[in-house]
Amino acid sequence: MEKRKGNCIFAQSGGPTAVINAGIAGGVLTALSREEIGKVYCAEHGVRGVLDERFFDMGEEDEAELLALRNTPASAMGSVRYKLKPYEEDETDYKRILEVFRKYDVRYFFYNGGNDSMDTCMKISSYMKKTGYPVSVIGIPKTIDNDLVGTDHCPGFGSAAKYIATSVAEISLDARIYQSPLVVIVEIMGRNAGWLTASASLASVNGNGPDLVYLPEVPFTAEKFLSDVAQVMQRKEGKCVVAVSEGIRYPDGRYVGEDKSGTDVFGHSALGGVCGKLKATVVEKLGVKCKAIELNILQRCAAHCASETDVEETFEAGRQAVERAIGGETDVMIGYARKTSTPYEISFISTPLPEAANAEKKIPSEWIGADGTSLRKEFFDYALPLIQGDPDVRKSDGLPLYARLKKVLAKPVV
Amino acid sequence: MEKRKGNCIFAQSGGPTAVINAGIAGGVLTALSREEIGKVYCAEHGVRGVLDERFFDMGEEDEAELLALRNTPASAMGSVRYKLKPYEEDETDYKRILEVFRKYDVRYFFYNGGNDSMDTCMKISSYMKKTGYPVSVIGIPKTIDNDLVGTDHCPGFGSAAKYIATSVAEISLDARIYQSPLVVIVEIMGRNAGWLTASASLASVNGNGPDLVYLPEVPFTAEKFLSDVAQVMQRKEGKCVVAVSEGIRYPDGRYVGEDKSGTDVFGHSALGGVCGKLKATVVEKLGVKCKAIELNILQRCAAHCASETDVEETFEAGRQAVERAIGGETDVMIGYARKTSTPYEISFISTPLPEAANAEKKIPSEWIGADGTSLRKEFFDYALPLIQGDPDVRKSDGLPLYARLKKVLAKPVV
Repeated sequence: MEKRKGNCIFAQSGGPTAVINAGIAGGVLTALSREEIGKVYCAEHGVRGVLDERFFDMGEEDEAELLALRNTPASAMGSVRYKLKPYEEDETDYKRILEVFRKYDVRYFFYNGGNDSMDTCMKISSYMKKTGYPVSVIGIPKTIDNDLVGTDHCPGFGSAAKYIATSVAEISLDARIYQSPLVVIVEIMGRNAGWLTASASLASVNGNGPDLVYLPEVPFTAEKFLSDVAQVMQRKEGKCVVAVSEGIRYPDGRYVGEDKSGTDVFGHSALGGVCGKLKATVVEKLGVKCKAIELNILQRCAAHCASETDVEETFEAGRQAVERAIGGETDVMIGYARKTSTPYEISFISTPLPEAANAEKKIPSEWIGADGTSLRKEFFDYALPLIQGDPDVRKSDGLPLYARLKKVLAKPVV
Repeated sequence: MEKRKGNCIFAQSGGPTAVINAGIAGGVLTALSREEIGKVYCAEHGVRGVLDERFFDMGEEDEAELLALRNTPASAMGSVRYKLKPYEEDETDYKRILEVFRKYDVRYFFYNGGNDSMDTCMKISSYMKKTGYPVSVIGIPKTIDNDLVGTDHCPGFGSAAKYIATSVAEISLDARIYQSPLVVIVEIMGRNAGWLTASASLASVNGNGPDLVYLPEVPFTAEKFLSDVAQVMQRKEGKCVVAVSEGIRYPDGRYVGEDKSGTDVFGHSALGGVCGKLKATVVEKLGVKCKAIELNILQRCAAHCASETDVEETFEAGRQAVERAIGGETDVMIGYARKTSTPYEISFISTPLPEAANAEKKIPSEWIGADGTSLRKEFFDYALPLIQGDPDVRKSDGLPLYARLKKVLAKPVV
């Protein structure tokens, strides 16, 4: 691997997180400071911005605003859900990307996303190698789902976990104020992996956890669910707080919340409405009042309740991406390797893209209680270090003051 | 009015707020320190606990835990929705309350609730006067709805407003990350008064406010709504973020979200599902993707995002209640009178109960924009001071550590 000199592009793809821009901040600030890198571009709307030559010139931004990106939720550069076809099938997009890379002398390409994005990285890198164009392609991971393989945990997960655990603690207190029976069902994101839903149980460290947790990793039946809820109500003065994943499935593999609105562009089933369905079941079969609460997109954008550990690690992941690219690495995703949990310590690693792309990491079955509705100590040891610390969010008038970028479009190269 | 000596009861009623227990903390700590008051009791589940003689002896609690109540959401003593019939109709409950007051030598009764609770206070006080039993009855207000008459604003409103504005700011950023059109509808509490929904617009001070705000104070038509949304989408790259009150009504007075599940014990219509209905309308008529987000009970329990101004004022309201009762006042609710907004300064006042009970304060029409979907400067001047400051929430393991009360039941007096 040889050192390269040239310009770089950062781009963001897929669903955002509360800290996704911390990775961009770490990467961009590092890239701006390194002489190996000339122009620092951010593509608008991920790979779409590359195809359309929509690049923001990050050299035009104020450093204070780039630093404020650390606490600014939602993809600041715009995101995209765009799946590149294999180039063996259709070379059009790849030819265009190569053309743009050449025009803008792009020697470093940093793609900030989840496993679909790592797949995009891999395809682009593979095509560039085939055509002999030298470019470092590095994935900066992000996903609240925490389902990426090749890293101990994912940037964005700790903050979502903290928001979920905090909100469930508050809901759990609120659910117990009246004498009358009440079931509260909180629906949490996570299509196939239960990391986020499991995080609700972290609230139990201070006595405010959910009574039952339903994960995608454990086959779901309405019969067991109703029996679980009834038992908790009997034990706990008629109250039961349930955390349920949007992705729970019946033993035959069908999603409980599956609706008929089709699939997204990656072929995933569009989910939604699990808590509404379970609420109807509870009301009908148990005859008690039930509240259904969807945490919805708040769990991926609640920067006001982020984990400082997550913010700092994500910033550093961006910085590591640039340093490793300059050092000649390519075709890797920045990953975290945990050295110890007590005290919590990680190191940064380079995970080969094929390891991370298109794979999904689930909760190990030995971390799930025998009842199927609780988490064991191993999960708490794993997750608690990731939610520590409160970020110092810049405020004005009592409300967050997010990064104010100029977003100066780079002049098109002719 | 003469000074009385005896025991006191605090009780909580109606829906909770993020800071409701700050009022109890202020009141209980003050009562414990004053020689005019003997035993300090908190009734479990509001007036129900009085009827059932379920009293927690607050003298048994640690001061640190009583202070931690400042940042503990949800009625720590348990709440109730129990409407006393007029004693002219049915004297049973009143006789029982008098009996219990006599047994426990209760000379001070502090009731922490909204306008229904002030009605309860008034009825009890009136009955006690009729029977010649001397007791100070003081209302400590609380309601996120901010609809109480006789006070500039209500304890609990500032914190809910801050949570709503912060969440809408985050949602507003998240809504704009993709190129494709998107309407996001955020449903906010507030049955007849739009204070909470209006608070979403506070996020606009930092550029992240909703595009449209629909208040119960402004008659709603689907036609104008669709036209408003379409216009915003045209202006703002296909995106529109809407804040809507659960209590919007058609010009004929029917609630848009009215469902058929009947009315609650106070005769209010049970609401719900406004955002779902509007989402269906947007998808059908405008043919664009739409997300419906209910902030649900999080807006009344999110102590992690409380306003320190609100916490401090509420604590002081509890203290004022005790001091004024000892000073001989009765039949009043503690209120806030605003001296100035810049700098923000209030004084505490005693509002006669009949003024506060069963009345509802709405947003003045001159504070609402001519378009019916925005708030004028007057609202911002009013509301912004109320969301200032971040409380120092006690934490353990990265999560809130709420008050841990012993809740020692007082020995029944025979």
